[in-house]
Amino acid sequence: MDYTHFKRKIYLEDKPRAQAREEILEAQSVTPEKEEILTMDALGRVTAEPIFARVSMPHYHASAMDGIAVVAESTYQAHEQNPLRLTLGGQFCYVDTGNAIPAPFNAVIMIEHVDVIDEETIEIIEPATPWQHIRPIGEDVVQEEMLFPQGHILRPADLGVLLAGQQSVIPVAKKPVVTIIPTGNELVEANSELAPGKIIEFNGTVFAGFIKDWGGEPKLHPIVKDEPENIKAVLLDAAETSDIIVINAGSSAGSKDYTVHIIGEIGEVFTHGVAARPGKPVILGKINGKIVVGVPGYPVSAYLALEWFVRPLICQYLQIPEPKRQTVTVKLGRRIVSSMGAEDFVRMNIGYVNGQFVANPLTRAAGVTMSYVRADGLLIVPPDIIGYEQGDFAEVELMRPLEEIKHAIVFCGSHDLTIDLLSSQLKRARTDMKIVSSHVGSMAGIMAIRKGEAHVAGIHLLDPSTKEYNISYVSKLLANQDVILYPFLKRKQGWILPKGNPLGIESAADLERTKANFVNRQKGAGTRILFDLLLEEGCLTPDDITGYDREMFSHLAVAAEVNGDAHGAGLGIYPAAKAMDLDFLPVADEEYDLLMTRSFYESESGQLLIGMIQSAVFKEQVEKIGGYQVVENAEPKCLGLEV
Amino acid sequence: MDYTHFKRKIYLEDKPRAQAREEILEAQSVTPEKEEILTMDALGRVTAEPIFARVSMPHYHASAMDGIAVVAESTYQAHEQNPLRLTLGGQFCYVDTGNAIPAPFNAVIMIEHVDVIDEETIEIIEPATPWQHIRPIGEDVVQEEMLFPQGHILRPADLGVLLAGQQSVIPVAKKPVVTIIPTGNELVEANSELAPGKIIEFNGTVFAGFIKDWGGEPKLHPIVKDEPENIKAVLLDAAETSDIIVINAGSSAGSKDYTVHIIGEIGEVFTHGVAARPGKPVILGKINGKIVVGVPGYPVSAYLALEWFVRPLICQYLQIPEPKRQTVTVKLGRRIVSSMGAEDFVRMNIGYVNGQFVANPLTRAAGVTMSYVRADGLLIVPPDIIGYEQGDFAEVELMRPLEEIKHAIVFCGSHDLTIDLLSSQLKRARTDMKIVSSHVGSMAGIMAIRKGEAHVAGIHLLDPSTKEYNISYVSKLLANQDVILYPFLKRKQGWILPKGNPLGIESAADLERTKANFVNRQKGAGTRILFDLLLEEGCLTPDDITGYDREMFSHLAVAAEVNGDAHGAGLGIYPAAKAMDLDFLPVADEEYDLLMTRSFYESESGQLLIGMIQSAVFKEQVEKIGGYQVVENAEPKCLGLEV
Repeated sequence: MDYTHFKRKIYLEDKPRAQAREEILEAQSVTPEKEEILTMDALGRVTAEPIFARVSMPHYHASAMDGIAVVAESTYQAHEQNPLRLTLGGQFCYVDTGNAIPAPFNAVIMIEHVDVIDEETIEIIEPATPWQHIRPIGEDVVQEEMLFPQGHILRPADLGVLLAGQQSVIPVAKKPVVTIIPTGNELVEANSELAPGKIIEFNGTVFAGFIKDWGGEPKLHPIVKDEPENIKAVLLDAAETSDIIVINAGSSAGSKDYTVHIIGEIGEVFTHGVAARPGKPVILGKINGKIVVGVPGYPVSAYLALEWFVRPLICQYLQIPEPKRQTVTVKLGRRIVSSMGAEDFVRMNIGYVNGQFVANPLTRAAGVTMSYVRADGLLIVPPDIIGYEQGDFAEVELMRPLEEIKHAIVFCGSHDLTIDLLSSQLKRARTDMKIVSSHVGSMAGIMAIRKGEAHVAGIHLLDPSTKEYNISYVSKLLANQDVILYPFLKRKQGWILPKGNPLGIESAADLERTKANFVNRQKGAGTRILFDLLLEEGCLTPDDITGYDREMFSHLAVAAEVNGDAHGAGLGIYPAAKAMDLDFLPVADEEYDLLMTRSFYESESGQLLIGMIQSAVFKEQVEKIGGYQVVENAEPKCLGLEV
Repeated sequence: MDYTHFKRKIYLEDKPRAQAREEILEAQSVTPEKEEILTMDALGRVTAEPIFARVSMPHYHASAMDGIAVVAESTYQAHEQNPLRLTLGGQFCYVDTGNAIPAPFNAVIMIEHVDVIDEETIEIIEPATPWQHIRPIGEDVVQEEMLFPQGHILRPADLGVLLAGQQSVIPVAKKPVVTIIPTGNELVEANSELAPGKIIEFNGTVFAGFIKDWGGEPKLHPIVKDEPENIKAVLLDAAETSDIIVINAGSSAGSKDYTVHIIGEIGEVFTHGVAARPGKPVILGKINGKIVVGVPGYPVSAYLALEWFVRPLICQYLQIPEPKRQTVTVKLGRRIVSSMGAEDFVRMNIGYVNGQFVANPLTRAAGVTMSYVRADGLLIVPPDIIGYEQGDFAEVELMRPLEEIKHAIVFCGSHDLTIDLLSSQLKRARTDMKIVSSHVGSMAGIMAIRKGEAHVAGIHLLDPSTKEYNISYVSKLLANQDVILYPFLKRKQGWILPKGNPLGIESAADLERTKANFVNRQKGAGTRILFDLLLEEGCLTPDDITGYDREMFSHLAVAAEVNGDAHGAGLGIYPAAKAMDLDFLPVADEEYDLLMTRSFYESESGQLLIGMIQSAVFKEQVEKIGGYQVVENAEPKCLGLEV
């Protein structure tokens, strides 16, 4: 590798996002192309011109009822005491709803008010007023009426009035073609064999999805190698064949440089770096009249940059307003620190607990796609604010329907694989419900219940003095709060070790002896507390353990770390070891219980959850995993509140 | 026609909508079929099973920075006073973001903190901590982690984690096939020649659009004639080849009977009539295990019935929750009367005026598709409420994004064709803005401004005593309100007459003499006030005029009525006559002005509107229509408030 490029400093601007946006919108030469398509196929398309009705609807005087058509003026004498007889043909005719009213008739009498005497004769006892029960010409659509202006996004019913107005072919805005160019030597196509350092190219598919949703026509280019001449050629070709270009900058330092320099060479660069995180290292330029957006390599940065810059370009092309996300005011469960001078886009989990929306930040790492997938909302911290305190209220943009958030059971605390199973079961029974879980460890779970930020916490905290699980912690930390501790699972904790246990580990002492690469859990996790107890029992200290500070947030993450490292070791539950085909050596049978407020326990959702846990199908599924036992006939314990 | 079927009474139930819904959901045998598709093509599809990651992402220890990989423990002595030199290969290696960390290295130092000495040597002045700047295996996705439960609707970023997790083919719920059967002898295909009594079949296309939006696979059957054996055969076939059947009942009395009887004959009928308006005469049944929904013939009834019953069936099939519309609290501009015992679905216009949402009901006729298309929201009046008073607050389901409603200029008052033009121009300049107009006549326009329900009213009211337009009305009705009267147009009013003026009409007296079928405008319309003045001047009374009570709500509607009636006559503006190729005989040059509050006039939207009116391009377009002149250098008049 040529190390010299490391010397080249990359200067990134900190241009305000709004300014960068305005510049490209101004630079995009809007010559929106039109195309004529069948109205039947126009769902979701955008009208390119105002569209007028060619005919009226109804286009004739139509009966609005089933009944008879009469000349109103000839019925004026009809009265209860003076029934009027009319003869079919000259004096009345039968009409159904929608039938044309033949001349000279000018009113309709409902069939319910007609007395049929014989095949030729009827009798009425009430006069008709002129034009009663007649839908006049153009009641719905009047010929030459403007049905839609240009820039209207066509919905199902809109197609109806277009067809009714005899517009069966209409001019719509052509969808802008957006070419997506993934670059990077590290990228491989989906489903390829994975070697270390190789990454599956998935951003292109994500970009294509966004662009489709926003009304553009994505064109996904195959992966382009990090080679300047190569990239240049592809960019020049894209500028010929598309309306907007998105290039996903490779993550190598070389490619990061290339892209901006190549755009500058064959076009112009407006922006290199915006004052927003993540997403800062975006490149905005123009090649051959087409705007090119260079998005950063990390997925979350890329998705945000796409939304900031590509969406407005598409909307401008289509002449439609940019959609805005619904917002909701939330109470912040944690402090949020932001840097001055830049906008911060913080992915948030939102829960609806005790009648209010409570939000907590997810990881802010730009590389964690799942945090974007799991996010319920985005908190945008303006550049002039250094953050928010815990308990502050803030406005959050929703990334999911509010209804979905409202119906979610917010699960907090220790990670267990059965929670996903439970969520899946729950969703099967009630499609509008699910469990949203964040794995923060047992202690943080108790605190979340205390602060009213979660409905349920999964905890497994061993009290070293009593050797009893959970109760002492809850009693101490939730004194005076009306909570329920629901016995959920007995599960096996043990050493998670590489296949065959090459280092022969059976105890904490063995970890020290073999200098194994231990993988720990975060502070407050029940498994970590168990490990600390094992150290204590073995008269060891954290300093004796290599990797004591290497913290993972879930059992699976621990197992994943142990996997492939012959010197690795971790502590965790059986199914995590099994999932990665690792060895497992049981250490403890622990009690994993569910902590919840009494109000949740007694609520419909709470009872649904309990019912699900006790169902035969759930128990069977759990026991199939191995290392688990659902507590039979569990007795909920009322703790906390002194009654 | 065989009149005997009129004798057959059709008994419609008044079943609560929720009960009818529950019954069909229970009756739908949910055996949701799965299909395996490419993840790349899965946007918007619904997962059929929980999906787990096959590999971790990253699947190796990856550098999170550009820099060098080192063994952390070997750097502990590095210090500003004691720089540490490391040699390429054994002691460090260069890594770019995303690169795999080769053994035995376990930490990354950012390139910015590295001093390059030569090609083989670097120097650092700070130690590294183990695992710093390294993305651990599974930081984003952990192998065996549940990525999505079943019933998850896949969004763009979701496809990314699926591909990253090596799931490039996934099981999704098959889209339920919904066969749509339009029946009726009166129906003709779009773009057919139109004869009186014939209606273009457009509901099928609308249904197909809704079903597509809701996740189903629509299958639109050709029009089926009203013939029982025919309908029966088509229904039986649809029950074989689809998952759900929608039959759009023909509007003829015969067909209305057939449908329910045929379903009863070849299957079972659960419901015939629900306690909801419009949409009451819905039929719910089951044929050969497939739910059949018979929707009423009138478009608005049909669309509502489809939403009530077909959407939940599709959602149940896909195992997803039914989406709910966002709601907003509005102030009611008019009284709304509803019938006890049935839900009422009232289409509403919503405007954002003076900082609050004000809503007015649109026509409640089930046949007026445009009222559904134009509606901003739906007010659902529960069965136990007889309505709302003007000024009451109510919750309305939104049919358009709230943003769109917030940015609309609410126009009220007299209808003029140039308002559509103005709206189109405005939308061209600012895609997020438009004019929403309701044609209620000049007087109602003034009242809307008075009640704070509109931003702008178009008025043309002749004062018979002064022969002056508008000023006296505004001064009287809006005394003490700070309003602006903006001179907008001079336009020609005149007689609208059939081509060649066969009756030779030149005055109101001619109307009486010839017994012409006059088409009037609604009370409070400026044109009606003008007509009343013409009657007065001709010493005539309303009783002298045939059709005086036949009221239309727009100039175009008047022209449409005159069109095709050799004895017709109306009063209106020139372009309406021109649009229908009718004769026009000028009667008056009138002043059509815009009335607005001062606060709107001075607002950004107000000034934008005024700028648009005074633009050369708008004036040119208006004058091209004919019969118009935009007032040059208009002087806004401050009226109302005594300052």
